[in-house]
Amino acid sequence: MVAQIEQRVEGSNQLASADQVFTYTFESLPLQRGGQLGPVTLAYETWGTLNAGGNNAILISHALTGNSHARDIHHPDDPKKAWWNPLIGPGRPFDTSRYFVICSNVLGGCAGSTGPSSLDPNSGMPYGMRFPVITIRDMVRAQKFLVEHLGVRQLAMVAGGSIGGQQALEWAISYPEMVQKTVVVAATAALTAQAIAFSEVGRQAIMADPLWQGGKYAPAQGPEAGLSIARMLAMITYQSEEGMEMRFARRLAQNSAIPAPGRSADLGERFDVENYLYYQGESLVRRFDANSYLYISRAMDMYDVSEGYPSLEAALRRLRSKALFIGIRSDFLFPAARVRWLADQVRSLGGASTYVELDSPHGHDAFLKEWEQMTNALNL
Amino acid sequence: MVAQIEQRVEGSNQLASADQVFTYTFESLPLQRGGQLGPVTLAYETWGTLNAGGNNAILISHALTGNSHARDIHHPDDPKKAWWNPLIGPGRPFDTSRYFVICSNVLGGCAGSTGPSSLDPNSGMPYGMRFPVITIRDMVRAQKFLVEHLGVRQLAMVAGGSIGGQQALEWAISYPEMVQKTVVVAATAALTAQAIAFSEVGRQAIMADPLWQGGKYAPAQGPEAGLSIARMLAMITYQSEEGMEMRFARRLAQNSAIPAPGRSADLGERFDVENYLYYQGESLVRRFDANSYLYISRAMDMYDVSEGYPSLEAALRRLRSKALFIGIRSDFLFPAARVRWLADQVRSLGGASTYVELDSPHGHDAFLKEWEQMTNALNL
Repeated sequence: MVAQIEQRVEGSNQLASADQVFTYTFESLPLQRGGQLGPVTLAYETWGTLNAGGNNAILISHALTGNSHARDIHHPDDPKKAWWNPLIGPGRPFDTSRYFVICSNVLGGCAGSTGPSSLDPNSGMPYGMRFPVITIRDMVRAQKFLVEHLGVRQLAMVAGGSIGGQQALEWAISYPEMVQKTVVVAATAALTAQAIAFSEVGRQAIMADPLWQGGKYAPAQGPEAGLSIARMLAMITYQSEEGMEMRFARRLAQNSAIPAPGRSADLGERFDVENYLYYQGESLVRRFDANSYLYISRAMDMYDVSEGYPSLEAALRRLRSKALFIGIRSDFLFPAARVRWLADQVRSLGGASTYVELDSPHGHDAFLKEWEQMTNALNL
Repeated sequence: MVAQIEQRVEGSNQLASADQVFTYTFESLPLQRGGQLGPVTLAYETWGTLNAGGNNAILISHALTGNSHARDIHHPDDPKKAWWNPLIGPGRPFDTSRYFVICSNVLGGCAGSTGPSSLDPNSGMPYGMRFPVITIRDMVRAQKFLVEHLGVRQLAMVAGGSIGGQQALEWAISYPEMVQKTVVVAATAALTAQAIAFSEVGRQAIMADPLWQGGKYAPAQGPEAGLSIARMLAMITYQSEEGMEMRFARRLAQNSAIPAPGRSADLGERFDVENYLYYQGESLVRRFDANSYLYISRAMDMYDVSEGYPSLEAALRRLRSKALFIGIRSDFLFPAARVRWLADQVRSLGGASTYVELDSPHGHDAFLKEWEQMTNALNL
């Protein structure tokens, strides 16, 4: 149906034995909001072996600025080396001795998959803002092409947190027959007005930066200050008042070596929390494309699982898989009450839905920190 | 002690009969963090008449971007015409038939009082970032000079919300003998790390705007995009998830005539909450100075009522007035639990402290919206 260009070494079961990023390119992706995008490349990593029935695969989806490197086989115990490292491996919830675990860089991303920084075949230049508006549904459709290409007939599980959780939910609704179990972590049926508002402030910081140039910046000459400010704000929304108070309170910074995005002098003392945010902003700038940030964050805002269905109930009734919803007590971006509400809706419509709440002060980011609670929840 | 330059018509009891802004200029203000600032002008308005004993005055302090126009005598029932209008007037909580009500533009402000946009007498140019770091204590000391100049011997009440509440608290601690009643609304002993963090993101948006030029922008050529983005973010923190959901939810904007700060095209649909934030940003830019925003917001961050005392308890023990603390259920910038905690601390140290909580979905801004609940609380 679509042309398949395979860049990995075919038949290689060394897939699981090296930290290697593969790519899969297909000709064209029809888009939810109209039109086509193509060719589309997805970068991905896998761990474990697909069985003959093609039904032991687990697809996991990363968060906004993540990538395919969910596991690091050289440092399997270090959560800093790969984002869901402690959850993936033999005997862990995503058990690589039993399952074929797949993680791909999201459509629109900048870690190997096609996104705004990719070359537009029509112009030979980066897409920039000529990249089409993409949705969570588009991201999931692209993943479906990938997993089918890999020989997967049915996903034993699809799981993710935040925008990854939106994708997991969308999988269960768009392709119910392909999913046996869905794990939606810290995600809801649709963002709140407040979450959209925070997201838009970050995007405006990027787009108001003159170096953004309507998205036509050259590589490494992008809107660093704007992206850094967007990240600073996002990092606040990924945490919680309680968690930040535990970690920073009103302590002053020990040094002020990290420049602020505006490269301005400190006004009075510098608080440690400010130093931390500058660092986080600067770190993201080094590894992430500003236009990707715009497109992917926008897809989060626009996501509404009920889009295209007569009602939310009609959408949720499509779900056939077991569904685990994990909320986080202190999450204010995707409030636990709204995750629980979604789980309850699914159950009330006859779905096999379970809700677990992480008792954590770490806010939205707890799904990248609370390894024991996450393990317990995933092993349910 | 200090030279007093009076610009109002002396002996005028028409003070209360016209919406007129007066100014009082004094020679020099010693600053908490060192040095002096001078001359200092405070713009102010008054309503009602000071009694012979000089002890029926009420001082009210405005919020971050407010001004001295707390009451509008021509439109006394319109909260849009003056920020505490419905609370001030004959028979109202700030009863102008019994009290002499004073409101001054804050030190550092841009509505008539000395601030970064004022001319530095040393250079003849606006201070810009040569303006010294100022604190809540400095603001209160300047107010003290003003009220003494007006003949006030003791304040029957000092009241304010947000940074105005910080000032009210500081009055009660710095000048306990001068205050009979203190009303602290939606303010705490010190900001949380999260609140500082939000505040710093806004400031970085301003300082990263190239038009900021290190604070040396010409009038009306300032960092409009940056200030607008700072305001957008602040407006989120002044509301609540619950309130924004009631007001905006995921409704799309009916029109997109309001430009975004970055002057960028919409990416996909525009949500109504985004349109609202653009409008709020644009409105502030027209009436507020970016450098004032930096200095005043920074004073909020730095405020810690215990600064200069051996402990918080030692500071709070100085309070002699009756103290009313008003928290707001849905406030996440100054959480109600922290306002209540402060009230409890004062009471446990022997102070005459009362706590009232506004049951409002409107977040921090409820003290500018919940007129009936505010009236009831103030009449306690």
